[in-house]
Amino acid sequence: MTNVYNFCAGPAMLPVEVMKQAQQEFLNWQGCGSSVMEISHRSKPFVQLAEQAEQDLRDLLAIPDDYHVLFMHGGGRGQFAAVPLNLATQGQAADYLTTGSWSSAALTEANKYVVANEVAKARQIDGLWAVPEQSAWQVNNNAAYFHYCPNETVDGIELPDLPDVSAPIVADMSSCILSKPIDVSRYGLIYAGAQKNIGPSGLSVVIVKKDLLKGPQASTPAIFDYALQGKEGSMYNTPPTYAWYLAGLVFQWLKKQGGVNAMEAHNRAKAELLYQCIDDSDFYRNQVAKPYRSRMNVPFQLANPSLDAQFLKQAEQQGLTSLQGHRSVGGMRASIYNAMPLAGVQALTEFMREFERSMG
Amino acid sequence: MTNVYNFCAGPAMLPVEVMKQAQQEFLNWQGCGSSVMEISHRSKPFVQLAEQAEQDLRDLLAIPDDYHVLFMHGGGRGQFAAVPLNLATQGQAADYLTTGSWSSAALTEANKYVVANEVAKARQIDGLWAVPEQSAWQVNNNAAYFHYCPNETVDGIELPDLPDVSAPIVADMSSCILSKPIDVSRYGLIYAGAQKNIGPSGLSVVIVKKDLLKGPQASTPAIFDYALQGKEGSMYNTPPTYAWYLAGLVFQWLKKQGGVNAMEAHNRAKAELLYQCIDDSDFYRNQVAKPYRSRMNVPFQLANPSLDAQFLKQAEQQGLTSLQGHRSVGGMRASIYNAMPLAGVQALTEFMREFERSMG
Repeated sequence: MTNVYNFCAGPAMLPVEVMKQAQQEFLNWQGCGSSVMEISHRSKPFVQLAEQAEQDLRDLLAIPDDYHVLFMHGGGRGQFAAVPLNLATQGQAADYLTTGSWSSAALTEANKYVVANEVAKARQIDGLWAVPEQSAWQVNNNAAYFHYCPNETVDGIELPDLPDVSAPIVADMSSCILSKPIDVSRYGLIYAGAQKNIGPSGLSVVIVKKDLLKGPQASTPAIFDYALQGKEGSMYNTPPTYAWYLAGLVFQWLKKQGGVNAMEAHNRAKAELLYQCIDDSDFYRNQVAKPYRSRMNVPFQLANPSLDAQFLKQAEQQGLTSLQGHRSVGGMRASIYNAMPLAGVQALTEFMREFERSMG
Repeated sequence: MTNVYNFCAGPAMLPVEVMKQAQQEFLNWQGCGSSVMEISHRSKPFVQLAEQAEQDLRDLLAIPDDYHVLFMHGGGRGQFAAVPLNLATQGQAADYLTTGSWSSAALTEANKYVVANEVAKARQIDGLWAVPEQSAWQVNNNAAYFHYCPNETVDGIELPDLPDVSAPIVADMSSCILSKPIDVSRYGLIYAGAQKNIGPSGLSVVIVKKDLLKGPQASTPAIFDYALQGKEGSMYNTPPTYAWYLAGLVFQWLKKQGGVNAMEAHNRAKAELLYQCIDDSDFYRNQVAKPYRSRMNVPFQLANPSLDAQFLKQAEQQGLTSLQGHRSVGGMRASIYNAMPLAGVQALTEFMREFERSMG
């Protein structure tokens, strides 16, 4: 198979142009005779690459100067620990809104370092997942920060609006960063595992307001010390250099596409097409209330789940890969991040209609 | 420049055959139509790759079954924290032998979690670095473990023999793993950042005796919990999949070369050639006592340091790259890990002799 549309939730597909460039210069980067992964992170060419990547990300999201942009090890789950370690003193309270698997896991990890307060929890109403109205949240006025996950990869639940809370907002944007414009100044901290909208797995990006860093808890591993990594340009330890390089290529690709404004339109068009296909039929369904449907991860079920295996097999045969739902929920899921072209979603919806017809 | 010998200490050169294969299958791995970095870590083909890589490493080092082999985030510095968090209770004593920059940094980090006792420290005798005889070490009989770094990358100091201590031995083998046979059963834990002898940066490998894991300290970030990662096949969180894939290719390459026995001979030949060149001349010198000279990282100085810049520039012009010493010590350093061919060291020594002649 050489032409596929890969709907994997992560590690996810990267832009084809980026992958082709990376392949072309794989053995000999910028004529240096070595791969970019074989040179020192402290060498002039790599430092230049690293700084350019940071600048491009700052440009794309209009990140203010009083925020650090960090390129770190450890993925999103590493940040589940790093966030409380850096933003709260031991045993301080922190608020967590749980809207799915990832924000729930973040809360569990945080309880090692803070008293994590679940302000509210997504729940099913008439069979559809929804997030309680903010007026019903149990917010703690002494919380060091408010943590939430604007887009839940497993559950396909997205919060359209920024919560209106007084504590600094921490957002796990692993599966939605760079998918639309945001106002960074309204966040205290944004983090994202790279493997969905940024690059390969093994890298996480942290955007943090500098004045929130009063000194980490005593038990903080040095590699998770945001202030230290900020001071050292994310090179306190050897960073994941190849992932950083690929992230930089993705940022340049995004700029060429027209940045996050263009991505917002691109992603909205894809999501509308796919949800329309689901809603047009009784054969498929999505179990998230419309205001909370994710533009990035679209879980859907067949009304007759005994056809799941057949659906997945035929889709695979047509080059529509990695459509199985997360192992914890089953069914199907199409992850349609920035790098997924509209043509991929068109091919998917055509297949879905054809499959439904063939089962008629 | 297209033909270079890259002496970078890390991220270091990878075997040319490995890099060529990786480039060739970069966009379409095993005919799946996607890059190996674009597929789920839980997909059957990736799990197979991951298990094969682990098995190959087990074969290469004859790792007993009662050891976990973990593929983790965070590099060597991450393990500086993970080791005490997993092997000792809070405030317990642990022994550290400090023979250079990395073991000293490991001790500093460990003091967050244990009472780290410096059993001895490398020192200069008549201008040459040496490690005190073991009879002079201040070993703590209650130490949870004994930590050392068999090869110090920055300082070029290698310990030829395994320390004879009663506590479980923890070895930071970042710059010497797989460079010669070892008896894993004599260690409690071995760890290595990948970017020297295994693969790209962003991956660390941990080999740990299962029965040493009594439960980590309460403040251990979950991604650093060895027992948990062991139980989950290093997939508690999304691992750095592309680095894991490249590590697997390196392990297969090592097997084809004849394994660690062949590497030992290969590395000895390279190191002898280079030290001979240094010792044959008053123009160059190495400041490590002969029994402690590293086979992997060979630091050397010019008797006249004002020629350093000229040496480095001319070397670079001849395709001998990344020979500058670590920023903390200056001078020159040639890192000659497994992937460096003998021809690279021959080219370097020829250049060194020629440079000396031209300065005569």
